[in-house]
Order: sequence, then C-alpha cells, then structure tokens
Amino acid sequence: MSATDTSFLKQAVQLATRSVAQGGGPFGALIVKNNNIIGRGNNQVTINNDPTAHAEINAIRDACKNIKSFTLETCTLYTSCEPCPMCMSAIYWARINRVVFAATEQEAANAGFDDAIIARELCIPYEQRSILIEHLTCHEHDQCFIEWSNKPDKTEY
Amino acid sequence: MSATDTSFLKQAVQLATRSVAQGGGPFGALIVKNNNIIGRGNNQVTINNDPTAHAEINAIRDACKNIKSFTLETCTLYTSCEPCPMCMSAIYWARINRVVFAATEQEAANAGFDDAIIARELCIPYEQRSILIEHLTCHEHDQCFIEWSNKPDKTEY
Repeated sequence: MSATDTSFLKQAVQLATRSVAQGGGPFGALIVKNNNIIGRGNNQVTINNDPTAHAEINAIRDACKNIKSFTLETCTLYTSCEPCPMCMSAIYWARINRVVFAATEQEAANAGFDDAIIARELCIPYEQRSILIEHLTCHEHDQCFIEWSNKPDKTEY
Repeated sequence: MSATDTSFLKQAVQLATRSVAQGGGPFGALIVKNNNIIGRGNNQVTINNDPTAHAEINAIRDACKNIKSFTLETCTLYTSCEPCPMCMSAIYWARINRVVFAATEQEAANAGFDDAIIARELCIPYEQRSILIEHLTCHEHDQCFIEWSNKPDKTEY
C-alpha cells in the first residue's frame, strides 16, 4: 500500500459520507487508471429505485462511459466498503484487476447492510436456496446462440 | 411449470434472439408480477459500454423504474439463460423470489460466455483469487455509517 492508495481510498470514503447527506446509501467508490480517477459512484438504491445501483456498480458504469470501453483492464477500484457478491462479480466482468476497500463486510452488516446470505447462497446448490430457481426447456432456447455464432460483425467479450 | 411459465420464458428467449439483430448480446429477460410483464431487458454490454448491462440487470432496473420501487417481491424473473453470479446477486438484492431460465450456463459457455471462473472465485478466499483484493484501514472509514445511523429520515433496505 502506498500514500497514493491511502489518498484514493480516503476519497472513496469521503464519497460514502457525502452520499448519506445527498440521500444515498453510505457507500462510495472510484476507479483509477494510471493514477487518474476515471469514474466515481455512490449508492443510489433507494433514491433511484434501482437495487443494482451500488457504489461500485455506479463507479464501473461511470468509468466505462467516460473512457468509452466495456472493460477496465489495469484499473484499480477503491471502495469505502468490502464489495458485495454482485459488485465483486461486476468487478470480474469489467476485468478490473485490483480492489482496495476500507470498511469490512462485518462493519457494513453492523450498520444494517448484510449481504452474507447472498454470498452463502451463491456457494450452495439451487435446491438448497431460499429462492426458487427452475430450469425449463424451451425449444427455441439456443436460436440466439446460433445467430450470435453466425453474426460476422459481432463484438465478443 | 405451467403454460403461463412456458409463454413468458418463450418471450424472454425471443428477446434474446432479437437482441443479436439489434447489436446486443444473445440474452433476454423479463420480470412478471401478478401475470403482467413489468420489465424487460436484453444484453447491452458492448453497445452501451457497460459491463453490468446484462439482460437480467436491465430487466430489474426497468421493472423497478416502472413500478417506482427498489424491490420486486412476489415477482418472477424469466431469463433466456441461467443467470451469472452478478445477476443472481442482483436477484437477491431485488428480493425476487423465483427465477425460471432456459439455456444452461454450459450452453452459454459453449457460445463463448463463460462465467464459471467468477462463480469459483466467489467461493474461495481472497488470497487464492486471480485478482488482488486488499483491505486498507482508513481512520474515517466508519463516519458514513455513523451519519447513516444518526439520519432520522433514512430509507432502510
């Protein structure tokens, strides 16, 4: 960890604190590439009626929009709090290769934001989960993959 | 499974097929509440430069916007393909309690969309993962939680 890491993390934490005053949830995140901040986000779940609007997801969306790319290789995500499984998965999809966080999952849980159940559910079979997850065959289900495979100008990712 | 399930799933599959022609990825999803479709989404990762724009995430965001709520209790999500860990986590955050999918994760992997590495990584300790995840203490890190706790008019979730 460097002084630069500490400075960026502190800014993510400040975004989280400001977020509360602005009506958002107490979380902030930013994306850094080559020592420049290219995206910022705070939690806007309740103010925007969007359960996916966590700070990290918003920061990823903002950074991708700013650099006009759907990947963020060589970037670091600084976040005020340990990412939940949704945000951690988004971090992998975005190809971010380093994450630095301040508060722990346990500290978030103490503040009323508990995602431990999601992490547990993702690691157990469907039939043991608290929600119903059902596989239904549908005879056209692979037409989309056939058309994708045959599309000459597709952008793979 | 009912005829209604089959009909809704078929519509999600059709969204996936149409998505390819529209420049999106080969995935579609819809959200149903009381037998009415309240949200739709297709994969727009590459056309919108947004790695979080999976069909399920887009359908959840659309449904929440339409019904002006950040939760989707009693809703079913129909999706053309087994949800990835990011979308599955979003499903939990949205409090959707039933998921019906057509193509399997393996079929998606065969088409070039492999999220098995993300699922594996979420179930192993940080130090064994392919990306760096670091915890750094920051003395103001819990100020946001203190302000959240003291905020009289907060919307909890």
